[in-house]
Amino acid sequence: MTVVAGGAAAARPQLIRAINEQVLLEHIRRSGPVSRTELATLTGLSKPTVSAALATIERGGLVHASGQRTGVPGPAARLYDVRPEAGFVLGLDVGREFLRGAIADLRGTVRCRLSVRTKAVREMARVQELADLAATLLDEAGITASQLTQTVIGSPGVYDPKRDTLALTGRLSGWDSPAVLPALRERFGPALMIENDVDAAALAERVHGHGRDVDSFAFVSVGTGIGMGLVLDGKLRHGFHGVAGEISYLPFTEGSGSDARDARKRGSFDASASAAAVVRAARRAGVRGATSAAKVFAAAARGDVIAAAVVTEEALLVAKAVCSVIAVVDPELIVLGGGIGQAPGFLDAVVEQLRLLSPVMPEVKMSVLAADTVVAGCIAAGLDRAWQHLLGRIAQPATA
Amino acid sequence: MTVVAGGAAAARPQLIRAINEQVLLEHIRRSGPVSRTELATLTGLSKPTVSAALATIERGGLVHASGQRTGVPGPAARLYDVRPEAGFVLGLDVGREFLRGAIADLRGTVRCRLSVRTKAVREMARVQELADLAATLLDEAGITASQLTQTVIGSPGVYDPKRDTLALTGRLSGWDSPAVLPALRERFGPALMIENDVDAAALAERVHGHGRDVDSFAFVSVGTGIGMGLVLDGKLRHGFHGVAGEISYLPFTEGSGSDARDARKRGSFDASASAAAVVRAARRAGVRGATSAAKVFAAAARGDVIAAAVVTEEALLVAKAVCSVIAVVDPELIVLGGGIGQAPGFLDAVVEQLRLLSPVMPEVKMSVLAADTVVAGCIAAGLDRAWQHLLGRIAQPATA
Repeated sequence: MTVVAGGAAAARPQLIRAINEQVLLEHIRRSGPVSRTELATLTGLSKPTVSAALATIERGGLVHASGQRTGVPGPAARLYDVRPEAGFVLGLDVGREFLRGAIADLRGTVRCRLSVRTKAVREMARVQELADLAATLLDEAGITASQLTQTVIGSPGVYDPKRDTLALTGRLSGWDSPAVLPALRERFGPALMIENDVDAAALAERVHGHGRDVDSFAFVSVGTGIGMGLVLDGKLRHGFHGVAGEISYLPFTEGSGSDARDARKRGSFDASASAAAVVRAARRAGVRGATSAAKVFAAAARGDVIAAAVVTEEALLVAKAVCSVIAVVDPELIVLGGGIGQAPGFLDAVVEQLRLLSPVMPEVKMSVLAADTVVAGCIAAGLDRAWQHLLGRIAQPATA
Repeated sequence: MTVVAGGAAAARPQLIRAINEQVLLEHIRRSGPVSRTELATLTGLSKPTVSAALATIERGGLVHASGQRTGVPGPAARLYDVRPEAGFVLGLDVGREFLRGAIADLRGTVRCRLSVRTKAVREMARVQELADLAATLLDEAGITASQLTQTVIGSPGVYDPKRDTLALTGRLSGWDSPAVLPALRERFGPALMIENDVDAAALAERVHGHGRDVDSFAFVSVGTGIGMGLVLDGKLRHGFHGVAGEISYLPFTEGSGSDARDARKRGSFDASASAAAVVRAARRAGVRGATSAAKVFAAAARGDVIAAAVVTEEALLVAKAVCSVIAVVDPELIVLGGGIGQAPGFLDAVVEQLRLLSPVMPEVKMSVLAADTVVAGCIAAGLDRAWQHLLGRIAQPATA
């Protein structure tokens, strides 16, 4: 049972009505389309109570009768479902090379998606490109901006709600400038949510990937940049200053590709283990044609012994990061993502090293999500926020 | 307001009655002694509802009328409070050199406490010493074992509820033997709780120390052993395998006092930064009379340059551990504890190094709690469990 903790107001009829409506809506959201009888069984409410609550929700436009169930004994049952058009969510991913976006309806169905290569070098040009992408998406979806319940931008860096700043934006130069947030809000409205891009990817993993069946997991992304999204008790954790999961600051300096300037700008672990660090380590070791981390990994796969040693060193560094995560929070599952994290064979190499370091072995899996993971996570975050907003509207009469 | 999440049963009269009683009890626990009128104001319940619920709780023996409020206008109000004798909690701390214990009543008032130097070298002798200590404490408190609602033992290592094992017990040799848990349960009953000793200290910090006013903090203990208790959302976190906070496994190997055998047994960070590692580092560096970490710190304070360098290196290692905690979960506050963590001047040295490593600076404070911190934490954990148990008894008729 759910115990209402101390300090909570005691149950009152008005409040109970709002709670009943919220419970019904949650059930319809999860299990719809469903019949009145099924809802009564699922919720334990009486059928008259279900009918009354459904009428209120239907009047609000959130739910509609979506059809009838036939082929079962008895009269055909009317089925209720979320009205997809009751809300829309826009998710955007701002990367250094690509801008990506999608619009989904309230049931989570993606109506359209788009990726464009960015031409902007300055931050304000990038803001404009995002606004242009959003306009194209709205056009494709055939809706207006006013129909968007929530917009979420996945971005490098962390948004600090206490200071209302965007910081630690890594390789996206100028993106931490104080002018960026106001410019974004001017284009996307005051309710705009900014989500760290790796955190958004972790949310996508939670909704669509390996994170579905566990209460706690860490999505560790290693590639051009390094970051982590941490889910505990099923919820993404941002930390007190918004820097939970900023594992690029793990104080490992021993990587042979480490770079002091990078360490100051983006943290020791980033400077030792990012794609750029792998390239540096390979060059220092004498690997030929090491123009990208992918090429170093390919050389190792072809049997280049020096390149293989660089890959092993990278696996050890990532294993140390994962070991640190275990020693601090001990999640049930680790998901590796990013260009390096998802490289063939890399997971096994990390696990082999981790066994020698860690007091316990969690499950370690490779992410199966693709390039639009961040957008999918933004959509997931936006849908949750949109639902909170819509449920809050229901509860308002009772709490006002 | 408290939103009952999807999947929860809808509110029903029987359940509401149980919830009302629980809400009342929580208020009396927190604010007692209180009058009926005050309870009505605090909970938003009507006075007749409060009276009915109070009668039920009073019949159960959990609450009693503890006096009358006089000196205010109107008739003297009867005051209700938790009946202290409605339950007792026994907290025990099993250390390598000392066993400590205390008994508290349901209001948390400590009735008696005791510390004894342990003579046991084998685990079964230690179990017997704990049982003897408990018997003495019961005798002093003038109660019988059957009056104990909950017993909690603070112990090195982690209890894994999934496998029902005690592991990683560090310097308490033999304590992870499979015979220990059954032997403890035979003496202390099947409901015995085992809490990691550093986690228990973190709970004490939460209830009596710096952790009172924050939602999240990490209690980092550095001394003979190394460990961390992590509180997020006000709750102690054990992790999926019970190893959350086992920071002795942070993969730092660079300490000059590091020892490979210790690293295998208790983790790299323990091998580099425990009191024994400080002594090893000091001896290797040529500090004279370095027979304990305290002596190395004292030599540094007297101006011994080599000893000071050892202390600085120790501060850097601890700062790296704290930086890792920030990069993973970003708590609001770090509390340093333990023989080294609470050494004079050490906190400032750690903060100085941390500024160079960390992306943000949380508050860092030194614990002000003393040697019986673990026992205090066990009492706090036991009281919470005892209350859950007693509240659960109230709710049972509604959920059965």
